[in-house]
Amino acid sequence: MDVELHDRLLQNGEKTHARNFLWQKNRPASMKLFDKALHDSHGQRVKEIIDYRNAGGKSIGSFCIYVPDEIAMAAGVLNIPLCGGTGFTVDYADKVLPRDICPLIRSTFGMAISGTCPYKTLKDFVIGETTCDAKKKTWDLFDIRALEVPQKKKKADRDLWLSEVRDFTTQVEELSGIKVTSEKLRDSIRKQNRKRDVLNAIGQYRTLPEPPISGLDALLVSQVALNMDINSFIEAGDILLAELAERAEKGESAYSEPGVRVLMAGTPSPMGYAKVHAAAEISGLRVVMDESCTGIRYSRGNVLEDLETVDEMLEAIADRYFDIDCACFSPNSERFSNILGIIEKYNVEGVVHNVLQYCHGFNVEAGKLSGILSEKGLPSLKIVSDYSQEDAEQIKLRMEAFRGIIENTRSHK
Amino acid sequence: MDVELHDRLLQNGEKTHARNFLWQKNRPASMKLFDKALHDSHGQRVKEIIDYRNAGGKSIGSFCIYVPDEIAMAAGVLNIPLCGGTGFTVDYADKVLPRDICPLIRSTFGMAISGTCPYKTLKDFVIGETTCDAKKKTWDLFDIRALEVPQKKKKADRDLWLSEVRDFTTQVEELSGIKVTSEKLRDSIRKQNRKRDVLNAIGQYRTLPEPPISGLDALLVSQVALNMDINSFIEAGDILLAELAERAEKGESAYSEPGVRVLMAGTPSPMGYAKVHAAAEISGLRVVMDESCTGIRYSRGNVLEDLETVDEMLEAIADRYFDIDCACFSPNSERFSNILGIIEKYNVEGVVHNVLQYCHGFNVEAGKLSGILSEKGLPSLKIVSDYSQEDAEQIKLRMEAFRGIIENTRSHK
Repeated sequence: MDVELHDRLLQNGEKTHARNFLWQKNRPASMKLFDKALHDSHGQRVKEIIDYRNAGGKSIGSFCIYVPDEIAMAAGVLNIPLCGGTGFTVDYADKVLPRDICPLIRSTFGMAISGTCPYKTLKDFVIGETTCDAKKKTWDLFDIRALEVPQKKKKADRDLWLSEVRDFTTQVEELSGIKVTSEKLRDSIRKQNRKRDVLNAIGQYRTLPEPPISGLDALLVSQVALNMDINSFIEAGDILLAELAERAEKGESAYSEPGVRVLMAGTPSPMGYAKVHAAAEISGLRVVMDESCTGIRYSRGNVLEDLETVDEMLEAIADRYFDIDCACFSPNSERFSNILGIIEKYNVEGVVHNVLQYCHGFNVEAGKLSGILSEKGLPSLKIVSDYSQEDAEQIKLRMEAFRGIIENTRSHK
Repeated sequence: MDVELHDRLLQNGEKTHARNFLWQKNRPASMKLFDKALHDSHGQRVKEIIDYRNAGGKSIGSFCIYVPDEIAMAAGVLNIPLCGGTGFTVDYADKVLPRDICPLIRSTFGMAISGTCPYKTLKDFVIGETTCDAKKKTWDLFDIRALEVPQKKKKADRDLWLSEVRDFTTQVEELSGIKVTSEKLRDSIRKQNRKRDVLNAIGQYRTLPEPPISGLDALLVSQVALNMDINSFIEAGDILLAELAERAEKGESAYSEPGVRVLMAGTPSPMGYAKVHAAAEISGLRVVMDESCTGIRYSRGNVLEDLETVDEMLEAIADRYFDIDCACFSPNSERFSNILGIIEKYNVEGVVHNVLQYCHGFNVEAGKLSGILSEKGLPSLKIVSDYSQEDAEQIKLRMEAFRGIIENTRSHK
């Protein structure tokens, strides 16, 4: 670790967190738990993992929500999502990676390269996946193993994916020396379902007319959910849920004015990155749902419970993850139906395409999606950005203009 | 068609061709056939296809060397590769595609959008493939069907690919109403093998110490091979081969000075684009081999001949195409072995990574490859560029410097 640089990274992180989240006036009190979890991700959480490993525990690193947590957990292996969300380390990646690939990859490997990733030595192996060209080739560069996520949703693809899920099971079993039994897998499925239930329940509150939690804070919950110990997360989530129920009962909104209801669609915003969400909510857009990998794409759909055999459960897990609607699939009609479903269900008035620069998948797909939305008379705004702050004010201006367009449409209805 | 704009495109094309190829002093006389073929790609060749279609022939468009010509041909379907190589139409793609995807896709769809693609109406359907994010999503945008090229080379992937090859067979059969019989498929396999043999035989001459054909002209042959009628191509190729045999016999080199021997590695250079190859050869680099999709990646490996059943042949075809070492595979060790084989066999002194901008696959993979080459003591130079001319002189300067490095290494050996 580069301790001095890491200190500066932390200072930068606290500043970013304040700028993105702490300006909000009427946050639920228990959001403090999640502010703390974010802070702890480079402190207490690291210590937890060190202790766990010192006691003989095994852990792996990953970069994508396609890696089935249930299986790792059943084999006694801790899966640590490693996606970087800080702009602080992006340029450190220049030593090995091209500048024109997405900031998420560059931030992640920039942390590793600059000696500021506290998890660098806290894992037995890392597992990538083939969801985009830049990640796929980055795995090759560092000899990282990868799950093959197929590109269509035909039967042959589902078969291929199931074989990958089975291979992954063997890999974590070999790592820990713990066999994935039906009992252990049944338990881990229940636990991970429970985690998703908590996320989805919190997500429901943001959709209310007087939402007791902002879209921005819902993002923070989702971001830290990827890092926190699962039990701690569920515990904190339950506390938040109780508060949200109370606030909802009283009609206590997280917002001082209603704003317009938008869906945030596209690429993930890992811990540290919330520039676009913050710009939206500062500008009076209410992010009533986030369909990204740090939104509902992460928590949508549970694994079938109460199955008998490991094999049945692995199939059920494969199916749940195969249903994820990443832009890596072609055609990706499931994503469009999911989005149209969200729009209908939550009275969405406009869509913000939040695209990390050089993510060709979500960038080109935004064009297709805009066309579909346009046919439904729904405006959309595409923001292509990176982890720098340089365009933050410009994005706010565009969000304000977008809000104006939506309000204008309303008054003509 | 926008006739006026198309005229300007053609004028631009002739100028580009002159700048890239016609400066060479000692070209084989029969290269005129291929200059003409390039010229005819927007004239005589279009007429041929119009006549063929007026007589009831069916045709499809494609964008990648993974589309098996043998199968289309056996079903009586003409496969027209559509990849654009002209910078002239790149910006026309802005109407529907992001600016930061590769110029090849933008040139291709820019032609279609600007009304300058003479093949736009000359096909019954187009077929894409899933070799990169930007292409994959572009197919979705235009509702283009696509072959799924898998991302690993395990058995499950080969099975998936075979099922795609079978689906493609059904698609072309349905289009033409012609059943792919063992006889027809055996013939088309032989014919396509013959075409590859011609390309590979021409390719051998460029590797000689006194090469009767330049690397640049070998590129032109490969480029037009994708557009010409296959019989016309084989005929022209045979004429060129006879001339090359004669010139080799006499020791007549295409170059006035020996230069240094380089391998051009990376992304394809479709008809119209030869900026990097030209810069290399103008600067005294001799491109003794080109491992791209418009080089040996297109012609390497024949399909097994003299098989009995259609099923056996489809498997053999699937295997031949599955062996292609595109950067879409992870890990792509086959590509590295192939490259090391070329280097060994043809006394390559340095490698130029020729990467189209925003092609994440070949761009990131160049880093891995450079590392492997570096361990072997082989210098490499990465050129990331697009279809504009803006950096042509800069690239030449870098090529000259690279030549200097190689000559310097030589004198220290």
